[in-house]
Amino acid sequence: MSLWPVLEDEEMSPASRAVLDDIRRTRNTDFVNNFWRVLANDPALLKRTWESLKDVMAPGALDPLTKEMLYLAVSLANSCDYCVRSHTAAARAKGMSEAQLGELLGVVGMASETNKLAAGLQVPVDEAFLAPVSASGNAGN
Amino acid sequence: MSLWPVLEDEEMSPASRAVLDDIRRTRNTDFVNNFWRVLANDPALLKRTWESLKDVMAPGALDPLTKEMLYLAVSLANSCDYCVRSHTAAARAKGMSEAQLGELLGVVGMASETNKLAAGLQVPVDEAFLAPVSASGNAGN
Amino acid sequence: MSLWPVLEDEEMSPASRAVLDDIRRTRNTDFVNNFWRVLANDPALLKRTWESLKDVMAPGALDPLTKEMLYLAVSLANSCDYCVRSHTAAARAKGMSEAQLGELLGVVGMASETNKLAAGLQVPVDEAFLAPVSASGNAGN
Amino acid sequence: MSLWPVLEDEEMSPASRAVLDDIRRTRNTDFVNNFWRVLANDPALLKRTWESLKDVMAPGALDPLTKEMLYLAVSLANSCDYCVRSHTAAARAKGMSEAQLGELLGVVGMASETNKLAAGLQVPVDEAFLAPVSASGNAGN
Amino acid sequence: MSLWPVLEDEEMSPASRAVLDDIRRTRNTDFVNNFWRVLANDPALLKRTWESLKDVMAPGALDPLTKEMLYLAVSLANSCDYCVRSHTAAARAKGMSEAQLGELLGVVGMASETNKLAAGLQVPVDEAFLAPVSASGNAGN
Amino acid sequence: MSLWPVLEDEEMSPASRAVLDDIRRTRNTDFVNNFWRVLANDPALLKRTWESLKDVMAPGALDPLTKEMLYLAVSLANSCDYCVRSHTAAARAKGMSEAQLGELLGVVGMASETNKLAAGLQVPVDEAFLAPVSASGNAGN
Repeated sequence: MSLWPVLEDEEMSPASRAVLDDIRRTRNTDFVNNFWRVLANDPALLKRTWESLKDVMAPGALDPLTKEMLYLAVSLANSCDYCVRSHTAAARAKGMSEAQLGELLGVVGMASETNKLAAGLQVPVDEAFLAPVSASGNAGN
Repeated sequence: MSLWPVLEDEEMSPASRAVLDDIRRTRNTDFVNNFWRVLANDPALLKRTWESLKDVMAPGALDPLTKEMLYLAVSLANSCDYCVRSHTAAARAKGMSEAQLGELLGVVGMASETNKLAAGLQVPVDEAFLAPVSASGNAGN
Repeated sequence: MSLWPVLEDEEMSPASRAVLDDIRRTRNTDFVNNFWRVLANDPALLKRTWESLKDVMAPGALDPLTKEMLYLAVSLANSCDYCVRSHTAAARAKGMSEAQLGELLGVVGMASETNKLAAGLQVPVDEAFLAPVSASGNAGN
Repeated sequence: MSLWPVLEDEEMSPASRAVLDDIRRTRNTDFVNNFWRVLANDPALLKRTWESLKDVMAPGALDPLTKEMLYLAVSLANSCDYCVRSHTAAARAKGMSEAQLGELLGVVGMASETNKLAAGLQVPVDEAFLAPVSASGNAGN
Repeated sequence: MSLWPVLEDEEMSPASRAVLDDIRRTRNTDFVNNFWRVLANDPALLKRTWESLKDVMAPGALDPLTKEMLYLAVSLANSCDYCVRSHTAAARAKGMSEAQLGELLGVVGMASETNKLAAGLQVPVDEAFLAPVSASGNAGN
Repeated sequence: MSLWPVLEDEEMSPASRAVLDDIRRTRNTDFVNNFWRVLANDPALLKRTWESLKDVMAPGALDPLTKEMLYLAVSLANSCDYCVRSHTAAARAKGMSEAQLGELLGVVGMASETNKLAAGLQVPVDEAFLAPVSASGNAGN
């Protein structure tokens, strides 16, 4: 049982209902998963979260599958059960094979290990890694 | 200053030296970053870590740039300064643009937010996300 | 099933029983939640934990509801299911409305996002944030 | 040195410059801290982050100081140096005393301890904590 | 239900089966726990993970019980339910008493608290803690 | 620079001074490290933290070196720089060799990896790990 109830469409406020309609339109499916149905208890939180997510996950310099796999990697690093499930499903739907999932798990596991070793040993950053990135190379320019 | 000294080649044991030689061969560069030079204080730890990493990062079902970006995403999620620097450098060297880095940061930030909301609200996993993946679709088969 | 059994009053040692009596007195209720009943398997751990908690949560410069909401925010940041449940219950009992919970969740989510961005981008601390706090302004004086 | 440069106003794109202007207006100060000046390298990331933050931190069911202290508590739980500095400064500016900071630190420390004990011992959630919150009591209704 | 199925011996590939045989030989028991049976869906991930673990947990400068307790302490710090269960079982099998488990929990809890206070307060490292460890004292020499 | 100043003995309140005297007596040394000198800005926080720590680290069912290494392992898992430094120094002072530190790092790294894999793959806990521990075997009895 979630902290707030999982709302059916007819149980939520019009403001939340409008967000769910946008989720359906954007994703081109009738299915809206529980995450949004729980957030629907607070229309402002639901709307802000969805609009940011929609923006972040829109096609851009990175393709949608890569974005899903990055999302999944962070969810694994944070051990968020729900998020691992939902983003694994989304990545599979966008074409991730089980072999790719296996390699992704390998990277996440290995990064978790070397992150702790590098931070624990307090390794100084190499000069070579501090070379400036010219402003003109930045996205803002 | 790191917990163990950053060793120059001539300061390390032959066993550690041999690992650094393999790093140079594999990466096709003379440069070996500080992470390995600190691990070199413990040849067994160095060897095991390097061999796992070499295996994980080898080309496979995922291309090298995608693997680097996944590694970077986990390092960001774990707030490992050294790792963020080294894997940003590696990803840039493999072609990551600043626009792609910006989108990667957007995904990591957004995942960090929704991971906390989903876990905090204890959202129940949707039945649709629990559908079995047939064994024949797995990498092991 | 917990790692150690959830003990009924009559199953625990007199030392643990005495701590539960103090919990009942301090909280002015007969109800003692499972956290304490599991810790009761180790009277020293139970006693030290309860006494620290009682001290920390006592009214002081911050009011009890604010303290509960801070406790809840940290529990959300740490994704501790049990703690989120118990401190949500406690905060509601002390007057937290669902609208306040929604805003609290918004802050926790947003902080999780910007924490990762600030740490990941390794933003240098502004001079203005390093201005000394005079010793006389400290709680110890 | 940050991953992206700390941009002066005249170094950033018009889109980023417009966001900084809004930060100044909203906060009623000329000072814009480094976090935003680094995000300014990616105008889309800057804009989305600022607009969410502005929304989350606006006065609502919780007062601004409580929100700042919650933000600080999460930043402490996540050990984000920059965030701890900036939100301590902001909370002090909104009236947080050093005695209040001391109690906040006490709560964060104690929560970090009991979060690990509750999760580690895998304490089952008490029935009493699972009682439903009526939909009509939720913010969305 | 796990993300990948828990495989019986006869359901896995010969490569995974060979790793399970080595686990049985090394641990001198017929029982192979679910962690390995899930990893068995990806023979390469299974093999690499097992070989690293076997190497790390072999008797060395630290005795097997101490290694198990360190593993358990990290699993508690990471709030990994499965890992807490499996390493508590392993440590008990190697002789950990419930009194020792209680003290281990005390250390983990206390470390979680002071870690947050030290990092949050941004305490500068004492000169005394930075004294160099002579290279000749290192494992690599 | 820490969030609160590092206080010299003569700068702190008598209450904090008394705690430092107890630290010196208990540890049988004149040296008091910065962690306590920063906490000294808040005598109540200092006293509660020290008394809990003194209790937790006292000899018991686990010997002092094992406790220090467990403390260090958690500090590494939490990437707390100060804590890694201070507990490495303490463990070395109590006899930890560099070879033992190397193996400890190996365990922490490996646990970080398998913790993420076990949690990520959502491996179900084996029945064998859920067998009850008889109450009479618990520390509280």
